[in-house]
Amino acid sequence: MSNLSIQQRVLDLAPSATLAMKARAKVLQDQGISIISMGAGEPDFETPSCIIDAVKRALDKGVNRYTGVRGTDELIAAMQLKFERDQKVRYEPTEVISTVGAKMAIAMAIEAVAGPGDEVIVIAPYWVSYPEQIKLAGATPVITSSTISSIKKAITPHTKAIIVNSPNNPTGEVLPESYLRELCDLLVGTGIWLISDEIYEHLVFDGRKHVSPASLSDDARSRTLIITGASKGYAMTGWRVGFAAGPQKLVAAIAKLQEQRYTCIAAVTQAAAAFALREPAELTAEIEKMRVSYQDRRDRLVQYLKNIPQIKCTAPQGTFYALLDFSEVMKDDETLASRLLTEAHVATV
Amino acid sequence: MSNLSIQQRVLDLAPSATLAMKARAKVLQDQGISIISMGAGEPDFETPSCIIDAVKRALDKGVNRYTGVRGTDELIAAMQLKFERDQKVRYEPTEVISTVGAKMAIAMAIEAVAGPGDEVIVIAPYWVSYPEQIKLAGATPVITSSTISSIKKAITPHTKAIIVNSPNNPTGEVLPESYLRELCDLLVGTGIWLISDEIYEHLVFDGRKHVSPASLSDDARSRTLIITGASKGYAMTGWRVGFAAGPQKLVAAIAKLQEQRYTCIAAVTQAAAAFALREPAELTAEIEKMRVSYQDRRDRLVQYLKNIPQIKCTAPQGTFYALLDFSEVMKDDETLASRLLTEAHVATV
Repeated sequence: MSNLSIQQRVLDLAPSATLAMKARAKVLQDQGISIISMGAGEPDFETPSCIIDAVKRALDKGVNRYTGVRGTDELIAAMQLKFERDQKVRYEPTEVISTVGAKMAIAMAIEAVAGPGDEVIVIAPYWVSYPEQIKLAGATPVITSSTISSIKKAITPHTKAIIVNSPNNPTGEVLPESYLRELCDLLVGTGIWLISDEIYEHLVFDGRKHVSPASLSDDARSRTLIITGASKGYAMTGWRVGFAAGPQKLVAAIAKLQEQRYTCIAAVTQAAAAFALREPAELTAEIEKMRVSYQDRRDRLVQYLKNIPQIKCTAPQGTFYALLDFSEVMKDDETLASRLLTEAHVATV
Repeated sequence: MSNLSIQQRVLDLAPSATLAMKARAKVLQDQGISIISMGAGEPDFETPSCIIDAVKRALDKGVNRYTGVRGTDELIAAMQLKFERDQKVRYEPTEVISTVGAKMAIAMAIEAVAGPGDEVIVIAPYWVSYPEQIKLAGATPVITSSTISSIKKAITPHTKAIIVNSPNNPTGEVLPESYLRELCDLLVGTGIWLISDEIYEHLVFDGRKHVSPASLSDDARSRTLIITGASKGYAMTGWRVGFAAGPQKLVAAIAKLQEQRYTCIAAVTQAAAAFALREPAELTAEIEKMRVSYQDRRDRLVQYLKNIPQIKCTAPQGTFYALLDFSEVMKDDETLASRLLTEAHVATV
């Protein structure tokens, strides 16, 4: 039926580079080849057993009903506690929401604030899905470097939002509080939302601390949507639980989108998240063990790369990513990733 | 920050009437008032224990990683088996996908095929979310009665899809095969997709059988997207698992949207669904018990209403809904629903 058509904006969507690599690696793995998987942003730890035990208890109590759009009362209270503890910002129950991973929260936030004719600023280097999600909303991604002066230049009357991601995927950079303050100052008086992707908040190294722009001033709080999730810090990627917190009117818009699209996230995953967010002592120990392990691996990678002068790498300050500069070895990054997979059996992006 | 704005098309989204009633009922319930909840489309059964046991086994094996966008290999195989068994249509692995409930599958299907300037036909009476999802995609809902001649009249050069829902929410009507054949014949040679919402397929009464339009001809198969889910038949609403099957190019478009929005559905819910879809004997018995109970309740409701001449009701042929005509009692349905809730403590929509 060649006359049955698909919308051009959907056909134009780039497939996710990370997921494409994961799919290619899976083909080789299904052939029995052992692949070192550094492609998808995924912890290699198991979900801590105390979370699994909490889920089993929830299963016995029953998790088979729809919940409120934002989440169960239990999860809403856990999100409030979490944002006050970690981001140092107090939110009302109507200012928080659970979503299908942080990814969906970002997609809905963009859709809520930007449409055709609007621009959303993305700071390079950036997570590959931001520009696609902006285009999907019908808006235009505006890529800029991270200096405050270049961000200032990128702002136009069409700018509806700016996306900030610290700790950063893919560089591992942790933005200092002074930088975030300058950025927030720049936005005072504008109608620009600040979408703060803090999904790697648990993974900061060398005694640094994570700072949310929402905590810096009343103005910043009133324009910032904090987005985070259970995936990275608690080794729960497959659970698909994201959290967002921000001004009531933006969270209400996201809730409306969620309500008409999928009602709520799975009750069983909400039970897992509600337990994890409270970070009981047994879980805190696991989280810290994982963080130390990532930091140790970072150290070993950086040390190892020092011996290969053709490959440059700035030591990541957080996350479990490292952005390597192979330009002296090979110019085309896709060819490089392809050869690393087929010849060295290492999946990268 | 009054200059921080939300997109008008999101502000214009109607809140879900069913979820609004659920929220109002919850306020009364939190005050200790016992509410008979007939609002949200939700089984009052617990998820069968054999499914819960399967989930616990999956938890022990580990369900913490991202899966492929369409689902795990296990779930994809289970979906193929299910569609061949129940819908009598064979699909390739690239022709099936799991989604966050049937609702999300419908939303993404609409978005994949319709946009600004396009029309999607909705047959009345219809599930309240269809028109909102169509508007969210930027397209226009065209409401028509169910006669083939009025559907024919509703078709224009802008028609991109038609949504069919059998068994029907809210009437409980099960469309006969002869009707579906006429509808499919009408679409031959057009570029109109058939979105077939079959979420109530398990709940048909009086020996009727569920028929999917996709099974009626090669042409029908090539333009039909079957959408169903675990929610209603397996009493798994809170698990948020939907399934879609159709031509590769439409399923690929949905996969792209899913990939850029939320990667995949939760692995733990996929494990539950993969078990349930195979319908082992222990589960089949549970499903049949629930179906018989719904049929019995239908009988009692219809019998009871016979004694109230002012309320008219056509006996539902499936689902767990009944559409009652109160027009001789009260003209305004919202006032009626409101009074039923506050005075009789019965939540309806």
